[in-house]
Amino acid sequence: MSEPVRYELSDAEVPTTWYNLVPDLPVPPPPPLHPATHEPVGPDDLTPLFPMDLIAQEVSTDSFIEIPGEVLDVYRLWRATPLHRARRLEAALGTPARIYYKYEGTSPAGSHKPNTAVPQAFYNAKAGISKLTTETGAGQWGTALAFACAQFGIECEVWQVRASYDQKPYRRAMMETFGATVHPSPSAATEYGRKVLADDPDNPGSLGIAISEAVEVAAADPEVRYALGSVLNHVLLHQTVIGEEALLQMAKAGDSPDLIVGCTGGGSNFGGLAFPFLREKLAGRMAPEIRAVEPASCPTLTRGTFAYDFGDTAGMTPLMKMYTLGHDFIPDPIHAGGLRYHGMSPLISHLYDQGLITAVSKPQLECFEAGVRFARTEGIVPAPEPTHALAVAIEEALACRDTGEEKVILTALCGHGMLDMAAYTAYLEGRLVDHEYPLEQVQDALTRLPRVDV
Amino acid sequence: MSEPVRYELSDAEVPTTWYNLVPDLPVPPPPPLHPATHEPVGPDDLTPLFPMDLIAQEVSTDSFIEIPGEVLDVYRLWRATPLHRARRLEAALGTPARIYYKYEGTSPAGSHKPNTAVPQAFYNAKAGISKLTTETGAGQWGTALAFACAQFGIECEVWQVRASYDQKPYRRAMMETFGATVHPSPSAATEYGRKVLADDPDNPGSLGIAISEAVEVAAADPEVRYALGSVLNHVLLHQTVIGEEALLQMAKAGDSPDLIVGCTGGGSNFGGLAFPFLREKLAGRMAPEIRAVEPASCPTLTRGTFAYDFGDTAGMTPLMKMYTLGHDFIPDPIHAGGLRYHGMSPLISHLYDQGLITAVSKPQLECFEAGVRFARTEGIVPAPEPTHALAVAIEEALACRDTGEEKVILTALCGHGMLDMAAYTAYLEGRLVDHEYPLEQVQDALTRLPRVDV
Repeated sequence: MSEPVRYELSDAEVPTTWYNLVPDLPVPPPPPLHPATHEPVGPDDLTPLFPMDLIAQEVSTDSFIEIPGEVLDVYRLWRATPLHRARRLEAALGTPARIYYKYEGTSPAGSHKPNTAVPQAFYNAKAGISKLTTETGAGQWGTALAFACAQFGIECEVWQVRASYDQKPYRRAMMETFGATVHPSPSAATEYGRKVLADDPDNPGSLGIAISEAVEVAAADPEVRYALGSVLNHVLLHQTVIGEEALLQMAKAGDSPDLIVGCTGGGSNFGGLAFPFLREKLAGRMAPEIRAVEPASCPTLTRGTFAYDFGDTAGMTPLMKMYTLGHDFIPDPIHAGGLRYHGMSPLISHLYDQGLITAVSKPQLECFEAGVRFARTEGIVPAPEPTHALAVAIEEALACRDTGEEKVILTALCGHGMLDMAAYTAYLEGRLVDHEYPLEQVQDALTRLPRVDV
Repeated sequence: MSEPVRYELSDAEVPTTWYNLVPDLPVPPPPPLHPATHEPVGPDDLTPLFPMDLIAQEVSTDSFIEIPGEVLDVYRLWRATPLHRARRLEAALGTPARIYYKYEGTSPAGSHKPNTAVPQAFYNAKAGISKLTTETGAGQWGTALAFACAQFGIECEVWQVRASYDQKPYRRAMMETFGATVHPSPSAATEYGRKVLADDPDNPGSLGIAISEAVEVAAADPEVRYALGSVLNHVLLHQTVIGEEALLQMAKAGDSPDLIVGCTGGGSNFGGLAFPFLREKLAGRMAPEIRAVEPASCPTLTRGTFAYDFGDTAGMTPLMKMYTLGHDFIPDPIHAGGLRYHGMSPLISHLYDQGLITAVSKPQLECFEAGVRFARTEGIVPAPEPTHALAVAIEEALACRDTGEEKVILTALCGHGMLDMAAYTAYLEGRLVDHEYPLEQVQDALTRLPRVDV
């Protein structure tokens, strides 16, 4: 028989705990601050938005948190996800590198997002909440939350960034098939949306604006809470099932990664894969470089400022210390809608600041070229977001062709692109362009960072 | 831990042979006939269209045919596919029935079609062929062949039924991403297409017309061959990997099916799942009812005539004895594009004629209702085609709620619906209708059946 190309896990091997990186860090991350007092936020400040179980996870100092049985029961619809060795891509590149990808596209939403949507819906349902509101960019997160809410019998209301809402009508259709209500954002359904539309009726939207709308609706109704698809500690915590599985699967493959590479928007896919490996690295059991890849048009880590800023555009969320391009910066409408976020997870930002991870940015044409190359060899059409990581994996593998190094590369293929095909058509027809880094816009947005004396 | 919901196979358990049902049948199926002489076709008659390896499989009397290593290497990008127990659907229905589904949506095309596309591309490449032509309805088959051709470095040219080409632009984008050229059918690129367009410039197309166009181009060039995505013996042969895997997986689940239900367009998905189980039934080792489900608007088995007819509309193919609605019957443009075929696999037709399988038809609204119900419980949005089988599975499971019977139902979930979301939107917005069975059109088409004296 030929060499293995997929490494599966049995039901019994699916992780039963999430991993919390925070207690293992040499230096603790800076706390979030109350937007008015600039004091560290306490659990009570977050109760209008989140149920207590999730708030407890957000600030937990436990290394491992048990996954509830009700959540595991839903996870098992698609988990464990496969780890693939990209032998056909390797052969096409003529590289001695060994490329592995952890594929999250087999989930109901076609991405990694249900890993956190399911526990978020579960804990809210358990707390008696009747409806969740949320934002979505490319639509992956909204689809995931719509699916998860259907599993636990609660309503789901989604504000989708208008640029994606218009580009990707099938995503809205999936959310509605799972039973959710979807608004384009900015919308006339919220006070903040109406304000934005009054200033600019053609505003293409941003994740920051959509968050403001969803938060506004949740904060106004005690029966309703808000769910965030990335950025926060508890979201990254839930995503660590990816990395815990991948650790077991890499062991089955008999390989240890020299380079782990993932795309970063809010950071949850990247963190989900990387954190369990970072634990092993901090413990001296392996030594991979862990590298984040972001779009050249929204290069939060590589060009942003490490400062306290709002997670949303309206300035309603707690202040988080993170790499940011400014909370009112609106990225160009690139097709990797999930990467169009002005900030970065505070935990990922802290790791970058501490030198525990590296980061690069990639322009979108190179990413789509990598995506097409991957599709034609491995058979999976990647979502535009993970093509950023694939571009780096391919670049590294081609470098190995020259050096002869048998580098082991592990990448997060966080979703497929079947609902992003308009972007591939645009690429194949030569209609896509690389967006310039909007230096002046960012410099302008950074002048409006909140002043925080800490 | 909870009860299992997925049954996986290891790499070593993936079948290494295809199963040929023909030698195990009590009565052999009628042979295909030459369209001019009405004599049984010999291998030489088929060489303009197919390479000799596939012709040999088409007429093989061996029970098992070895899968080439090069084909297995590609299969293993996604095979074995999972068998799921639909516990969350069962709970929602309150049924004592046990529902299993064999899910082919994890393939590169999102359906079962690559199971035959890969060996077809392989055998053609091995024979030195430089290009394959084909037709596609919903686009699943064209996507599969485009992927398979990319794996073996040959060109792929696809005629897609215009109704689907217009409804499903993402499918065309996927084919192009895999490197194929795509025409809407009828097209101006062929003599037959130009003739059809001259008669009716707005012709929505049909699989029969698209087959005629693809066959015309292949037959005219010795470097080019044609690939068919269903209907023929060798296609159903390749699809038996589905049923062979499902047999092993049902054994792991410790259950034996009382009812196997699959949708039928050309018959390859249904046959692929059913044939290995039918072998076991004929050998007296199990006794499942095996039931085909077809759309009410294109009810080939349940309302058609068992007669020799052409596989295509122009009358270029051999004559095959099959259930048919007439080779120039054009089905209504329902969303289950893959089921819009005037005929039925001769092998499936023979089984139905012999009383070895049963058949029913379902209207599209009931099917979409089943699809939405399935999506909200099991998390997979089914393609419109397999919702026909799900509608029957749900109907049977609900009957068991009343009778208390613990019926074991196995269904073929042959693909996901992520590229069919416009159909779900139309359904959710109340814009879908049930099409009347076009009795007069069919009666008219049947007057043009070829006269064959056998």
